[in-house]
Amino acid sequence: MRRLKATISYDGTLFSGYQVQPGERTVQLEIEKVLSKMHKGEMVRITASGRTDSKVHATGQVIHFDTNLSIPTDRYQKALNVQLPSDIRVMQVEEVPSDFHARFSVTGKRYRYIWNCNNVQSPFRRYYAVDTNGVKPNIGKMKEAAQYIVGTHDFSCFCAANTSVVDKVRTVHTLDFEWHDQELHMIIEGNGFLYNMVRIIAGTLWEVGTEKRAASQLKEIIASNDRGSAGKTAPPHGLYLEKVFY
Amino acid sequence: MRRLKATISYDGTLFSGYQVQPGERTVQLEIEKVLSKMHKGEMVRITASGRTDSKVHATGQVIHFDTNLSIPTDRYQKALNVQLPSDIRVMQVEEVPSDFHARFSVTGKRYRYIWNCNNVQSPFRRYYAVDTNGVKPNIGKMKEAAQYIVGTHDFSCFCAANTSVVDKVRTVHTLDFEWHDQELHMIIEGNGFLYNMVRIIAGTLWEVGTEKRAASQLKEIIASNDRGSAGKTAPPHGLYLEKVFY
Repeated sequence: MRRLKATISYDGTLFSGYQVQPGERTVQLEIEKVLSKMHKGEMVRITASGRTDSKVHATGQVIHFDTNLSIPTDRYQKALNVQLPSDIRVMQVEEVPSDFHARFSVTGKRYRYIWNCNNVQSPFRRYYAVDTNGVKPNIGKMKEAAQYIVGTHDFSCFCAANTSVVDKVRTVHTLDFEWHDQELHMIIEGNGFLYNMVRIIAGTLWEVGTEKRAASQLKEIIASNDRGSAGKTAPPHGLYLEKVFY
Repeated sequence: MRRLKATISYDGTLFSGYQVQPGERTVQLEIEKVLSKMHKGEMVRITASGRTDSKVHATGQVIHFDTNLSIPTDRYQKALNVQLPSDIRVMQVEEVPSDFHARFSVTGKRYRYIWNCNNVQSPFRRYYAVDTNGVKPNIGKMKEAAQYIVGTHDFSCFCAANTSVVDKVRTVHTLDFEWHDQELHMIIEGNGFLYNMVRIIAGTLWEVGTEKRAASQLKEIIASNDRGSAGKTAPPHGLYLEKVFY
């Protein structure tokens, strides 16, 4: 038995999220189906760095699983890609020590959130960036607000209500904004993220960028520990899990 | 009554091509449905610069139609976009003289063909670029072969057999190749194109780039006037109608 770590990329559009749910098409289900076929019908469970919601994308999700097949890692990657649907691709497979754990060994993650600010949204971006109807936010104000978020805080204000996590203290290392032509990217890196945290931050900073809130309000929002004081949860299809650090 | 010219963009993935066909979802049908609704149920016919096949994309297709609605062009554009499905977008609407004709007034067209040469194809590009399984062609050879195509020739060799067009002489003004990261773009401009011409050129030049044919063979292929002497028709989803000139 050996443990493999795989870096995977998926277009979240046609999935009911990452995690297996009865009757739904999920990323986990599609990968486990292929692995089980490779293991002659034996069930192979995979473990990811964390879930992603329906329509959320990943360019660098990480999973691990145990296998008794002695195929070299590059051929393992190809064998998976030949059988997987084209909206999931395995970018890399590595052998790791048996105590490596895709979820518990995580030291940090990077996410990207994309808004399309073209006056007319391109039909090619409809599932991959959030259309702003031509609105171009003030990114100076978004960057100013971001400075209140960077650091170690109790982020209860940015956590969806339906969560069982008790300790809501996390560290956001960096939170940057970049224009790529007419698209605005928010890139956030931290040691861990609460449920919906990136989308609630994106939604709140969008309200700052469109001058519905002052940047300085972020200080009070964080101090409130109250989800109700923050902005709306931004739509899922603008979000990408880009990198998981170990 | 006034004549409007509209520049439209569409993601060809979910369409059975541009032109209306009974029982199929087509670009023409979707636009005519919206126009008819705007004209209180009266049928409004649109005319395009030409058809595109199933899965072929457009970033600059042009259509014209006649309307008795006196809405300003910018509001006309918005009214169409609000009602159209998100895989079609109207990029511009202009008023044109009544003798403007989207098809007969065309003086030239530009197409783009995209190959994705990444070792592992991105799930996000599966409908928008042709996967080469990591093969990177020799674009020096493709450019050399392209020089035989540029100019005025009888292009019967690059025309699908099932066509009723008699005069197969066309002028190709430019035929260039560019790398965009790991994607190879072929950009071709000419005064007109025969049925499947761009895809057959792409397929033939791909065979040159992967050294299955010599660049110099292009001279004989063109002189043969024989579709059978050229290469395979490249897949539709790599093709974009980019600009129509008038």
